[in-house]
Amino acid sequence: MQNFDYQTPTRLIFGKGAIAKLPQVMSTFGKRILLTYGGGSIKKIGLYQQVQDLLKDFEIIELSGIQPNPKYNPSVLDGVRLCKEHKIDVILSVGGGSVLDCSKAIAAGACYNGDPWDLISYKVKAQAALPIVDIITLAATGSEYDCGGVISRTETNDKIGYMDRHLFPHTSFLDPTYTFSVSKKQTAAGIADAMNHTIEQYFAEDTTLLNDGFCESMLRSLMVNGRKCLDNPEDYTARAEMMLACTYGCNGILSLGNSESGWPCHGIEHALSAYYDITHGEGLAIITPRWMTHILDEHTLPRFVKYGINVFGIDASLDEWTIARKAIDETYKFFESIGIPMHLREVGIDDSRLDEMAHHIAVNEGLENAYAPLSEKDIKDILVNSL
Amino acid sequence: MQNFDYQTPTRLIFGKGAIAKLPQVMSTFGKRILLTYGGGSIKKIGLYQQVQDLLKDFEIIELSGIQPNPKYNPSVLDGVRLCKEHKIDVILSVGGGSVLDCSKAIAAGACYNGDPWDLISYKVKAQAALPIVDIITLAATGSEYDCGGVISRTETNDKIGYMDRHLFPHTSFLDPTYTFSVSKKQTAAGIADAMNHTIEQYFAEDTTLLNDGFCESMLRSLMVNGRKCLDNPEDYTARAEMMLACTYGCNGILSLGNSESGWPCHGIEHALSAYYDITHGEGLAIITPRWMTHILDEHTLPRFVKYGINVFGIDASLDEWTIARKAIDETYKFFESIGIPMHLREVGIDDSRLDEMAHHIAVNEGLENAYAPLSEKDIKDILVNSL
Repeated sequence: MQNFDYQTPTRLIFGKGAIAKLPQVMSTFGKRILLTYGGGSIKKIGLYQQVQDLLKDFEIIELSGIQPNPKYNPSVLDGVRLCKEHKIDVILSVGGGSVLDCSKAIAAGACYNGDPWDLISYKVKAQAALPIVDIITLAATGSEYDCGGVISRTETNDKIGYMDRHLFPHTSFLDPTYTFSVSKKQTAAGIADAMNHTIEQYFAEDTTLLNDGFCESMLRSLMVNGRKCLDNPEDYTARAEMMLACTYGCNGILSLGNSESGWPCHGIEHALSAYYDITHGEGLAIITPRWMTHILDEHTLPRFVKYGINVFGIDASLDEWTIARKAIDETYKFFESIGIPMHLREVGIDDSRLDEMAHHIAVNEGLENAYAPLSEKDIKDILVNSL
Repeated sequence: MQNFDYQTPTRLIFGKGAIAKLPQVMSTFGKRILLTYGGGSIKKIGLYQQVQDLLKDFEIIELSGIQPNPKYNPSVLDGVRLCKEHKIDVILSVGGGSVLDCSKAIAAGACYNGDPWDLISYKVKAQAALPIVDIITLAATGSEYDCGGVISRTETNDKIGYMDRHLFPHTSFLDPTYTFSVSKKQTAAGIADAMNHTIEQYFAEDTTLLNDGFCESMLRSLMVNGRKCLDNPEDYTARAEMMLACTYGCNGILSLGNSESGWPCHGIEHALSAYYDITHGEGLAIITPRWMTHILDEHTLPRFVKYGINVFGIDASLDEWTIARKAIDETYKFFESIGIPMHLREVGIDDSRLDEMAHHIAVNEGLENAYAPLSEKDIKDILVNSL
């Protein structure tokens, strides 16, 4: 078991009607709020108006139009500028993980005098950040309970996972009813995203019975409840359990003491969505089973066997290689069954830039140190097999 | 799924050598430390001297002699007096859960002008508490990652679980090597304590696949690793996993969104150790299977079936009642197999005060609202069956 230094200070206010505590929470920071959000969905579900009503005694500056795979330019830069111009006290992020990831980068940039990219690219370590409060409308990324965010810089095809302990949200409001209107496509992508977060941590060295069991529970819960959410989008219990499960995805609680796994599917997917701006969860779902097939060997076999038996209930008396291959097949079939396009071509990616992406990933993602080390050729093979 | 408002801000510094960060952590609070500990065990393992060496630049006032089932008088009262007299900046608790529980009550009492019992008995709500840092030497209670403590008041036979959000430790140092010298008796009691914490949360209404799976993983991990710790007290990996599992026992992470279970075995055991000062984990191990037998009925049956299949691997094709009874039997046999005395008579409790204890529990513990409601007669029956 590896040493660790761990803290997750975020307050979770969870459940139907949770937002009633919003004014009380916001009043601890000051009067000037930067309200960040994406497109019109928070207006459509009435949440935008609800927030305005609850915070009528505050001064609200808005930054809207934050996109999926949030962009450094213009979103982060605009947000930082607004924070400085208006002497913002606190950022209120209303939306999914992309809005929150963008808000985190803004929070750090607002307390830094240079180019915010210095922070995101780890050239400079953040010394402070504005406090962040969020209201989550999509169960997927876990950004509401971690200190990381992923920011894309279009001109360089960079998509960087940026983590800093100053970036834990102060408080996350999680009301499952806000996810009732999430489309089937986005619900499925959220399921795949959270499942992949779990898988990235499960396939590692030095895992424990405890962590393995937590991860297996996450995966079973996400599959069962995810399917219920797709069948009946207003199933409160299923939406709630899925929302809770997603919060654990990236804050480390599933892998305390494990060796670093390197998060290889994320390393690969970040290039896909940086080059092609695809939906992150779909990219992960496409890559995951191909990555699994690629790394299955004598060394990784026992992990796949455990995964197959405990997550999919595959008959433990079968031959180990059969169990492992069935487990990978079940993974693929589950993603396919929830409506995810399972080929890169289906999300608009052909073979024209595979070499370039494989090279970019190999240079930037450090996957030669992953649980199963990946060379540029390995990465290229996984991409080709994902077409 | 129930609403919840959840936060666990404690920093965990975990692993061999973790203590190296102690001076840095302590320096954030000031120079004056109240060092709390129990008997001589921290001196025997060299930890006392190590702490003194690391903190030679601080002013250290000591409160030693804190007992298991820590006492309001003299320990809490002495500690509060010392904090006030010496204008203590921070409390450093070195030992097991009892030392830390006592330190929490001191931390609250030091910031209150009246009788500290006002706080512990919830007559007055704490407005502040001194910061607490701990170094854990016994894996059991989970006090290092929660905001509660249990304090005994001998003259009234009260043993009260006191929780307040100000009482989360700022930082908990968890070095599994400090638990190498823990006796077989205390190791077994620690296993039983953490297992019961999990069981108390597992047997509840409105549980989720996610929480159930987390709890089942906890129980399997504690049994496997607990046994390894007993067989080889210096098995670092087993001690480490047991230590990590124990931290999750009481901070709520195993039951977010579940209905309140009422923690019935704790309600009953608190009276046993208040009246007879027995080892808490042993009391819980004795009560747990008798409580299970008592509450097994048509309504609770499915929980026991799930517990039996997923925790003990009982054949799912058996009749449900058979699975449930086997599960209870396996629980009893596991505790017995790790050397816990499984009858009240073996820990010095006879039938002379059962009525008095049953009445005390019925009046004070609110078990009529537990997952399976318990009347005074139910409690008496469980006690009689535990003799």
